[in-house]
Amino acid sequence: MKRKLALGLDYGTESARALLVDVATGKEAGSAVALFPGGVMDQHLPDGTALEPETALQDPQDYLNVLSTIVPEAVRAGNANAEEIIGIGIDFTASTVLPTLTDGTPLCSLPKFAGEPYAWVKLWKDHAAQPEADEMNALAASGNESFLARYGGKISSEWLFPKALRMLHKAPQVYREADRFIEAGDWLVWQLCGAERRSACQAGYKGMWGKTDGFPTPSFLEALHPDFKDFVSEKLTTDIYSLGEAAGGLLPEWAEKTGLLPDTPVAIALIDAHAAVLGSSVADAGKMVLALGTSTCHLVMHPENIPAQGIAGIVEDGIVPDFIACESGQSAVGDIFQWFMRHFVSAEHEAKAKAAGGDVFSYFEQKAAALPPGANGLLALDWWNGNRSPLMDAGLSGVIIGLTLATKPEDIYRALIEATAFGTLMIIENHTAQGIPVDALYVCGGLAEKNELLLQIYADVTGRSLRIAASSQAAALGAAIAGSVAAGTHRGGHASFTEAAASMARVKDTIFEPDSSRHAIYQHIYAEYKRLFSTFGKEMPDMMKRLRAIRSEQ
Amino acid sequence: MKRKLALGLDYGTESARALLVDVATGKEAGSAVALFPGGVMDQHLPDGTALEPETALQDPQDYLNVLSTIVPEAVRAGNANAEEIIGIGIDFTASTVLPTLTDGTPLCSLPKFAGEPYAWVKLWKDHAAQPEADEMNALAASGNESFLARYGGKISSEWLFPKALRMLHKAPQVYREADRFIEAGDWLVWQLCGAERRSACQAGYKGMWGKTDGFPTPSFLEALHPDFKDFVSEKLTTDIYSLGEAAGGLLPEWAEKTGLLPDTPVAIALIDAHAAVLGSSVADAGKMVLALGTSTCHLVMHPENIPAQGIAGIVEDGIVPDFIACESGQSAVGDIFQWFMRHFVSAEHEAKAKAAGGDVFSYFEQKAAALPPGANGLLALDWWNGNRSPLMDAGLSGVIIGLTLATKPEDIYRALIEATAFGTLMIIENHTAQGIPVDALYVCGGLAEKNELLLQIYADVTGRSLRIAASSQAAALGAAIAGSVAAGTHRGGHASFTEAAASMARVKDTIFEPDSSRHAIYQHIYAEYKRLFSTFGKEMPDMMKRLRAIRSEQ
Repeated sequence: MKRKLALGLDYGTESARALLVDVATGKEAGSAVALFPGGVMDQHLPDGTALEPETALQDPQDYLNVLSTIVPEAVRAGNANAEEIIGIGIDFTASTVLPTLTDGTPLCSLPKFAGEPYAWVKLWKDHAAQPEADEMNALAASGNESFLARYGGKISSEWLFPKALRMLHKAPQVYREADRFIEAGDWLVWQLCGAERRSACQAGYKGMWGKTDGFPTPSFLEALHPDFKDFVSEKLTTDIYSLGEAAGGLLPEWAEKTGLLPDTPVAIALIDAHAAVLGSSVADAGKMVLALGTSTCHLVMHPENIPAQGIAGIVEDGIVPDFIACESGQSAVGDIFQWFMRHFVSAEHEAKAKAAGGDVFSYFEQKAAALPPGANGLLALDWWNGNRSPLMDAGLSGVIIGLTLATKPEDIYRALIEATAFGTLMIIENHTAQGIPVDALYVCGGLAEKNELLLQIYADVTGRSLRIAASSQAAALGAAIAGSVAAGTHRGGHASFTEAAASMARVKDTIFEPDSSRHAIYQHIYAEYKRLFSTFGKEMPDMMKRLRAIRSEQ
Repeated sequence: MKRKLALGLDYGTESARALLVDVATGKEAGSAVALFPGGVMDQHLPDGTALEPETALQDPQDYLNVLSTIVPEAVRAGNANAEEIIGIGIDFTASTVLPTLTDGTPLCSLPKFAGEPYAWVKLWKDHAAQPEADEMNALAASGNESFLARYGGKISSEWLFPKALRMLHKAPQVYREADRFIEAGDWLVWQLCGAERRSACQAGYKGMWGKTDGFPTPSFLEALHPDFKDFVSEKLTTDIYSLGEAAGGLLPEWAEKTGLLPDTPVAIALIDAHAAVLGSSVADAGKMVLALGTSTCHLVMHPENIPAQGIAGIVEDGIVPDFIACESGQSAVGDIFQWFMRHFVSAEHEAKAKAAGGDVFSYFEQKAAALPPGANGLLALDWWNGNRSPLMDAGLSGVIIGLTLATKPEDIYRALIEATAFGTLMIIENHTAQGIPVDALYVCGGLAEKNELLLQIYADVTGRSLRIAASSQAAALGAAIAGSVAAGTHRGGHASFTEAAASMARVKDTIFEPDSSRHAIYQHIYAEYKRLFSTFGKEMPDMMKRLRAIRSEQ
C-alpha cells in the first residue's frame, strides 16, 4: 500500500516548521524548521523608523520565503515524494494581522508604506492597542453587546478589532488604503491557494465573531469611530469557514516553489494552540489540553453551547465541528520559572548544578521533588503577568506568602510550580461549576517534555490523570491532521477530525496519576489558595493596581 | 584636672566587651573584647548530654573568666590606671537566667548537676519554654491578670517565669535545689560586689514585675503548678533596684583579678538594648531609639504611665527613673536581608559585586538606592520571623506582593528594607495613637553603621529625622554611663542619667532628614501596607498559621 502523508505547517512567533505525517499511522516522516529572517521588530522598521512601546511587527514576506526551504527539506528528510502528500494544513499565532490590497498584497510591500509601522504585520503579542481594547470593553459593557458573554466579559488588546481601530486612530491613511484586514494564517492560505477563506477558529477566538451572532454590529463600531462603521463589510468578510474544510488547491506557482503537486488541498487555518489539541490526540469533550509553555493555554470541548463566565473564548465549531471549544489561559507559567532561574540562583547552586552535569532547572527540580506537599509552608498567586482566566485582569501581580528565615530557593521554586497548578485547577473548576466537564488532562509543549515534577504536581493538585502528547510538535501535527481531513477520504485522508486524531495522534505510555494522599494535602492548600485568590482578585483587586500606578508614576 | 573614667561591661550572646569612657567628655579611652570560651551550647553539654530542640545554654563561669582579660586589656589600651576608674556598669542580654545556691554558686558547677541541662544558664534565645509561655498566657487571659496589660497582652517564652516553670516541669530536682533563680546580669553584679541586687530593668521587662503590682501572685503561680506557688518568695526577691543605684563596691578578690580598686562602685545591671538607649544619648521622652541588628528593638520613654496596647513591655523607671520606658520589637530585620543575600544572589551579581570591590550588600545597596520610592511596584510584610510588635504573633510569616516578570533582585531588596521601615512606622504610630509621642529617631547597632540607604528610607518612610549614635559600642557606653551615675558626684561621676548621657554620649554630625516628596509617595504605599497588615494580621491571621501547621505535619 502506498504511503499517504499530510503536511503540517506550523507558524510560531520566531520560526516556521514543516512536518510530514503518515495519515494512517501518525508516524512523523520528516520535518524542517526555519527562523523568520526578519525576526520580530519591536524597536524599529527595516528603514530605521522607530516603533512605539508595546509594538511587535513582522514582515509577511518572511512567511512565504521560508516555504521554499522548509517544505523541500521536510520532503527530503522523509524520503518522500510529492505524490505521497495528500493535503496541507496550516496553524498560525493569532491575532497576528496585516492590512492588504484587494489582491492580498501587503501594504508594507508598497514603497510608500515601507516606513509606516501600521502597514506591517502586527504580531499577537503587540499590546499597543490596549487603550482601544479598554474603550471597546467599556462601550460593549454599557451597551450589553452579546459578544462579551462569549469572551468572559472582556476582549484583549491582542485581538483583531482593537488592532484595527488603533490603525484607524494612528495611521488613518493606511486604514483607508487597506482593502482587507486579515489574520496572517488566513492570508497565508490565500497566498497558497488563491482564495480568501477565513477560519472560524481565528475569527471566533480573535475576531469577536460568533456562528450565530456574526461580527460586532456597524452601530457598535460607529460609536467607536465614524469611519469604523463599515469595517466588517469593507475589510473583513462574513464568509467564515469551519475547520476541516479545504480552502482550495495549491497554486501552480507555489507547487513549483515547494516541489509539491499543484491542487494539493490546503486546509482552513487553525490557531497554533488549537492545532495542538488535535496533535495531543484530543477531538472530543471532557479532555482539557494544556499547551504548556511560557504561558499556558487551556482548551476543552463540549457538545452543547453554554454561556459561561470567566472563559476567555467560547467558539462554536472552534476546533472540531459540532463542539464548542472553550479557551482559557494563564498568562505566565514557564516565564515565571525562567524569571526565578534568571535572577535568583546563587553562585553556589549554579556550581552544584554544573557539577551534577545538568542545568539549574533540573538541579532545582530534583531538590524541589524531595519536598512533600506543604513542606515549603508557602503559597503563591501565579499572577506575574496578571490573571488571564478566569479574572481577565492584566493589572494583578504575583504574591508569595509564608516566607520565613528558613525558606530555601527550592521551597520557592516548588511554590511557583504549585501556584501555576492551583491556577489551572481554578480554571478547571470554573468550567465544571458551569456544566462543562473536565475529566482528564492532556499536555503538550516545551514544559510537558522536560519537567516531570511539574506534571506530577499538576496531577496531584487537580486530582486528575495527566497524559502527554507523544509528539513534541503537537501544533504541527494538528495542522497535518487538518490537512488530512481537508484531503478527504477520496484522496486517502480522513473523514473527520475524530478519525484523523485517532489515527495520527497519540499520547506517551507514561500517565501521571494523582496520588490520593498528596491530593488530600493539596486540597487543604488549595482552599487557602482560593481564599488568597479571592482576597487579591476580588475583594481588594485595587491594591495591586495602586502599586502598579505608583510604579508607573516613578 | 585628673581624668575620671567609667567602665562599661557589655555582655552579648557570644562575647563580652569592656569599654573605658571619660565621664566628662565621653571620649572612649580604651576597650577590649573576648569571646566566651564555651560559646553557646545548643546541641550538647560539655559532658556530651544531648539537648532538647530550641535550647541555648551557656557556662556562667565564662562570664567571670573573661573579666580578668578584658578589663586589664581595656585599661592598658586606655593608658589608664585604677585610680581613674570611678564606677562600673554592666549590661547583659535578657532573659538569660540561671539557678544557684544561696551563696550564688551556679548549680551547673556542682558535679552532680554537670550533666543536667536545666542547671546551666538558659540564654535569652532559648525558646524551649514556649508551651509554658502559652499556658501562662492562657491562664492570665482567663483570669485577667494585671501584668498582661504591661506586656501588650502576651508574655514570651524568652522570659524568666516560663523558663522557671519549664525547669520545674522538666527537672524538678534542679528546681528544688535552686535557692535562687536569677538573671545573669544580676548574678554578675552579685559576684562582683557580693550583694544580690536585682535590677528593675531586667525584672520589669523579663520578670513580669511592676513597680506598683510587683510579681505575679502565688495563686496565679499555684494554678500553673502546686510547687510553683512560692517561687517568688523562695527563689526571687521583691527587693528590686532602680537603675543608677550602686549595687555595692567591687570585692577585693575581683579588684585583684581585674586590677581595679576595691570598693569601686558597681551599678545595678541593665538589659543590653536598654543600655544602648543611653549610649545613643537619649535620656528623655519622645526620642525613639532603634537598636538595629538581626532584629530591631524600639525603646522610647514617656513621663507618665499610660496603659497601652501592642507594646511588648512598659516598665516604670525601666531605664531612667521617673520615666516609663516602652519596648517594642521587630523580630527579624537584618536577618531578612541576610536571608536574601545568602540564598538569592546570582553568580552574575556576585561577580559584579566582587569586581566593584565591595560585598553583595553594598552592591545591592547601590542598585536599590537608584530606584525612586514605589518604582519597584512591590510591597512586603516584614514577618519572616513573625510579628513581635504590635501583634505579638510568632505564627505570622513574610509576604511579597506586586511581583512581575520585570521584578529585579534590587527591587526585592529595596522592598525588604521598606517593609522593615513600614513595620517601624506601625510601631511608632501604635505609640502616638495612644498618647506616647515619638518625635525623632535615634539608631544604633550594626545596621546603623553600614547601611545608609536603610537610614534614608527609615527617615523618608517615617517622616522623622534620624540620628546615629556616635559610638559603635552604644550598649557598652550605656553601661559606662550607668557606672558614672553609680559613682555619683562625690567621686566625680554624674548625678543623673540625663546629665551623664549629655556629657558622655553623642550622635554623629550627619542627620538623615526625611525628603518631603519621597515621604509623600511613601505615605501612599504605607496606606497599602496598613491594609495588607490588617488583612493578614487581623482579618485572616489563621491563613499563615494553617500553612505553618500543614508544613509542620510534613
